[in-house]
Amino acid sequence: MNGDAGKVYLVGAGPGDPELITVKGLRLLREADVVLHDRLLNEKLLRDLKAEIIDVGKAPGKHKLSQEEINELLIEKAREGKIVVRLKGGDPYLFGRGGEEALALREAGIPFEVVPGVTSAIAAPALAGIPVTHRGISTALTVVTGHEEPGKDKELDWHALARLGGTLVVLMGVGRIRENTSMLLDGGLSPQTPAALIERGSWPDQRCVRGTLGDIAERASSSGVKSPAVLVVGDVVDLERYLRQRRIAI
Amino acid sequence: MNGDAGKVYLVGAGPGDPELITVKGLRLLREADVVLHDRLLNEKLLRDLKAEIIDVGKAPGKHKLSQEEINELLIEKAREGKIVVRLKGGDPYLFGRGGEEALALREAGIPFEVVPGVTSAIAAPALAGIPVTHRGISTALTVVTGHEEPGKDKELDWHALARLGGTLVVLMGVGRIRENTSMLLDGGLSPQTPAALIERGSWPDQRCVRGTLGDIAERASSSGVKSPAVLVVGDVVDLERYLRQRRIAI
Repeated sequence: MNGDAGKVYLVGAGPGDPELITVKGLRLLREADVVLHDRLLNEKLLRDLKAEIIDVGKAPGKHKLSQEEINELLIEKAREGKIVVRLKGGDPYLFGRGGEEALALREAGIPFEVVPGVTSAIAAPALAGIPVTHRGISTALTVVTGHEEPGKDKELDWHALARLGGTLVVLMGVGRIRENTSMLLDGGLSPQTPAALIERGSWPDQRCVRGTLGDIAERASSSGVKSPAVLVVGDVVDLERYLRQRRIAI
Repeated sequence: MNGDAGKVYLVGAGPGDPELITVKGLRLLREADVVLHDRLLNEKLLRDLKAEIIDVGKAPGKHKLSQEEINELLIEKAREGKIVVRLKGGDPYLFGRGGEEALALREAGIPFEVVPGVTSAIAAPALAGIPVTHRGISTALTVVTGHEEPGKDKELDWHALARLGGTLVVLMGVGRIRENTSMLLDGGLSPQTPAALIERGSWPDQRCVRGTLGDIAERASSSGVKSPAVLVVGDVVDLERYLRQRRIAI
């Protein structure tokens, strides 16, 4: 605990494997007085901490805090002079709403610092054997989220996405997979474009379902893929057959 | 060291700050018999290791190994039964040529594993105060490299990039900044589009030069920005004035 003003660290927890948090992230967790975390985080990260631990996520049956309530809680705890870690899945500034929390802290005059993390947009494909870029195959990576809130944001130009080529990664890729793959096909991508869906990337029960842009929605449905899952579209998906990880204990 | 067959770990070192490597990456460095690393890595990561340390990068005046020579060295060391860490800046599979090394290892029958890292494509902007996505401002991130090798790869469609909007991050963004910003302007992006160049993201001497798509090349030149630097183009750059990190020691 600190004399007068506390500080908030917006920390990326990485994709799920507790060893894929950064050294700095783990150090701050151990030093923190308070940890606010989302659902879907690996509970192993929260073991043996001295901090007060607050789940602000959507645990079933529990009250989920709104973004405004989370912001207020961060400010309140910091004003008590505490070192606060706001632990977020993946990276705080890539679809993590970390920017909104940072703006709220800045407006309240609370010192804060962002600690980047490993994003599942790159790690989930990698651990399934799919490099998101590869010489001669793909020289661009685009990351979007599958759950756009209509009206809240500028609409994504899925036709431009289709034209850009390269590799497309859709975070939260399973809920609206039919709509999203349809828009890419409408935009001109071939239904033969390789596609894969990685469920629970970096967790022990990680699973990869492969197919094409034309059939991945159907395969996802018949395989029962559930959230969280990352959709990857592009020729790099073909590398999976060579690069998928064989689990070898050494 | 291992009985018969060794193993190669393709490990992302993160953007530069030695605390931004993953917990797993650091553990493997400490366990390794051999570490092959690139230039531009923070030397602090290589301190106090028991491993043989081999610099395969472009250290001035020294012989730089070709990709094929690196692949052969990885295979040779693993065949000696050694645990080998191939340490790469950022993430091994995002413009890190990790996929090529993995393919070579697979062909040689060497067990390997990829350990994702924090990419400077997201971390460098974040640490300069620029979230690469932000609700209401940008819902897509595209990452490319500024140093395309003509003829070696499919050409990037910079016009489609311009049309997509969202946030564009150009790794190795300074060498060809004039050509690249010109193509984006030709593609239809406004010269008023906010742009920033982050030099040595996450290092103690990190520096951010802000401007617009129309003037960032000139500003980079007059400020003497050198490689490595990450170019960020998009409206999220305007958040930098609110979210830039004030260094406060706690």
